[in-house]
Amino acid sequence: MRVYDLITKKKHGEKLSKDEINHIIEGYVSGDIPDYQISSLLMAIYFQGMDLEETINLTEAMINSGDVVDLSHVEGITADKHSTGGVGDKTSLALLPLMASCGLKVSKMSGRGLGHTGGTLDKLESIPGFNINLSKEEMSSVVNSVGFAIAGQTANLVPADKKLYALRDVTATVDNMSLIASSIMSKKIASGADNIMLDVKIGSGAFMKDIGHAVELAETMVSIGRGFNRNVGVVLTNMEEPLGMAVGNSLEVIEAVNTLKGNGPGDFTELCIFLNSAMLKLTGIVSDIEDGKSMTMEALESGSALHKFREFVSAQGGDVSYIDETDRFESTKYSYEMICPKDGYIEAIDAEKIGICSLMTGAGRETKESDISYSAGILLHKKTGSRVEKGEILGVIYTDREGIEGELRDMFMSSYKFSSSPTKKKETIIGLVDQAGFTDLRRQVGN
Amino acid sequence: MRVYDLITKKKHGEKLSKDEINHIIEGYVSGDIPDYQISSLLMAIYFQGMDLEETINLTEAMINSGDVVDLSHVEGITADKHSTGGVGDKTSLALLPLMASCGLKVSKMSGRGLGHTGGTLDKLESIPGFNINLSKEEMSSVVNSVGFAIAGQTANLVPADKKLYALRDVTATVDNMSLIASSIMSKKIASGADNIMLDVKIGSGAFMKDIGHAVELAETMVSIGRGFNRNVGVVLTNMEEPLGMAVGNSLEVIEAVNTLKGNGPGDFTELCIFLNSAMLKLTGIVSDIEDGKSMTMEALESGSALHKFREFVSAQGGDVSYIDETDRFESTKYSYEMICPKDGYIEAIDAEKIGICSLMTGAGRETKESDISYSAGILLHKKTGSRVEKGEILGVIYTDREGIEGELRDMFMSSYKFSSSPTKKKETIIGLVDQAGFTDLRRQVGN
Repeated sequence: MRVYDLITKKKHGEKLSKDEINHIIEGYVSGDIPDYQISSLLMAIYFQGMDLEETINLTEAMINSGDVVDLSHVEGITADKHSTGGVGDKTSLALLPLMASCGLKVSKMSGRGLGHTGGTLDKLESIPGFNINLSKEEMSSVVNSVGFAIAGQTANLVPADKKLYALRDVTATVDNMSLIASSIMSKKIASGADNIMLDVKIGSGAFMKDIGHAVELAETMVSIGRGFNRNVGVVLTNMEEPLGMAVGNSLEVIEAVNTLKGNGPGDFTELCIFLNSAMLKLTGIVSDIEDGKSMTMEALESGSALHKFREFVSAQGGDVSYIDETDRFESTKYSYEMICPKDGYIEAIDAEKIGICSLMTGAGRETKESDISYSAGILLHKKTGSRVEKGEILGVIYTDREGIEGELRDMFMSSYKFSSSPTKKKETIIGLVDQAGFTDLRRQVGN
Repeated sequence: MRVYDLITKKKHGEKLSKDEINHIIEGYVSGDIPDYQISSLLMAIYFQGMDLEETINLTEAMINSGDVVDLSHVEGITADKHSTGGVGDKTSLALLPLMASCGLKVSKMSGRGLGHTGGTLDKLESIPGFNINLSKEEMSSVVNSVGFAIAGQTANLVPADKKLYALRDVTATVDNMSLIASSIMSKKIASGADNIMLDVKIGSGAFMKDIGHAVELAETMVSIGRGFNRNVGVVLTNMEEPLGMAVGNSLEVIEAVNTLKGNGPGDFTELCIFLNSAMLKLTGIVSDIEDGKSMTMEALESGSALHKFREFVSAQGGDVSYIDETDRFESTKYSYEMICPKDGYIEAIDAEKIGICSLMTGAGRETKESDISYSAGILLHKKTGSRVEKGEILGVIYTDREGIEGELRDMFMSSYKFSSSPTKKKETIIGLVDQAGFTDLRRQVGN
């Protein structure tokens, strides 16, 4: 089997067999097939696509390239969640306590941030003492006692995806449905949970620019899940502006804690409630979303979700006093108020630019080796749809870095777009895709 | 300028600017841009194409990657020819003497053979004493005195093409019109001649599978030529079977000499006469192809073209007695007659298989380092369209290699296809593309 012939086959729009896909992934991971042949194949896949069978075979080949997590020691219903990522996305921090307080078991491996989006591990490490390096045994012990644990990867999951993704990232071959779906699903399936809820972001700054493509991606991922006997649901959400008000590590932890205390921003709270409700339906704990919402609200209002979060922080070595009194988190040397330049309405806030601004404050990593500042970041005061007046505070930037105030102000202000006539915030929840297909939720939820 | 953005641009079908194309070629040749980004860009070009302006800019960027030959010291009209290659293609050996005897000056840099097609330099080196390593000064001296010279590359012409072609060859991105045209034209333009005649082969074993695509390629190359102030003509020829009867180094020299003596195979003789006639029209020496043919026939029949070939061999150190008495060329240890297995008509002879069979005899190189046997090869006795009878000789295989008779017989016989009803040989000359466009010659010439 020559890779050259497989590239030609895909170039001409033919289907690759399971053996051929295995040959490609095995050869690429082992180093027998060079980057330049794979990147040419990836571009051919971008143009010709892969059908569902090819996509499932690709997912399987990627899973088989590394370890697979065994969650058989976890007592109860295992569930996992994944978001395609976004600026200010601290969903795991609030959702996992909700899931656990409703009886689900979540053993989550997470990653660090790179570039303009943050990583859950970095956010958690802003809590003094918090330990993300758990052994397999420690992790399953925390999951069984608390209900959820979050740690760095303990196993060598899907090395093929690491290598392929790095190549796609520099060869403009990220945006293909089958490649995106197999990349996400191979990692989730290898992570072992029986139930998987995915949060696919739609918007100018996200992978998916429009609803049609997002639905197609979601349906592909649900079908892949079915192929591996996993129960998969996908929530489609808007990502036109940052999620919530906080961007930055401890700032986001504080926002997640406030949300669990019932004082979170509207869009973020709504998203967490919906994701948990959909998760409860997916796992069969409730029979419809409305019942899921009631159960979720009960977990929030009773304080049981907040209690789960405290237990979790404590079990992983974190100082719980910071959760009880979030004022204890250190602040930065500098804080700059961003002042609204005119009367009007906020039409848009460019999430990517806010992300880059946050990176500039020191809250993120420019390269894998960069140090990060846990207290740095941005707190938005106004979001899309708000009426604003000249002189009002749009947000505050926090940083320890010297002499970059001008640059930070420019980047922040360039992300805001104003209108003289009233504007509307887009619905947070767009829809849900599960075994039953796509449910459009744009008129039922939001605003 | 990030290559990533340029890949994305082409992926989305946008046009690359001259600066962008220069950036790509310069970066690739210098090693700043890695293979894997270029191969992904090449595949995007395969799907989205390049327009004429992009193709001309690419050609220019490639020319600028290396040296350009200065032919200002050559007295008279400079001309060059290039063939897209084929099995048994010894055209340069007979055409250049014809061109020179009609007053043109040809300073030809040629290459060695690799794989199933032979190289002009290897063929010439089968003449004892022949020297293909000429300095620039020696070369221009032979061109000025004899009218033509053939040597290995003395300059570093189009290094970008060497690197790009090697990559295209392993990433299934050879078959794109703009990439083929810029690869051929960059080398020809860098070689310095004002007039360029190209022989584009059409057929199952060639780059171009059909006439429509070949005409498009030819028109693109004529337009590129115009962009560089070069006079370009393209002859479209059939490459469904080997050209002439001889395949192998000294066997092809003998056939070329026989052709100059008026005893060559019909198809090869016809091709040489037509190419020279078209060249004479292209350079303005004659006003139409028919006048070109008369002048070419005169050069052949008077013996002046043969005389030019003798002068050329002598000027480059070769033993002219081999030209005068071609029986002096050594023969091989073994010769095997291939016997026709049944009565009928020859429907097809697979050129590529005959080429591989010739490679097996030792006449070609499997890798760049292989030694070659100058006397080995194949002499066909029967070609497409011939009536054959069981027991007749279809051809003879010459080799010095032991113990491969069975394999050679199998490969040879597998290249022949017979029919019980009469078959027709396809026209050698399909058409001509020049400034005036495409002229279909299928009914005027051939048979």
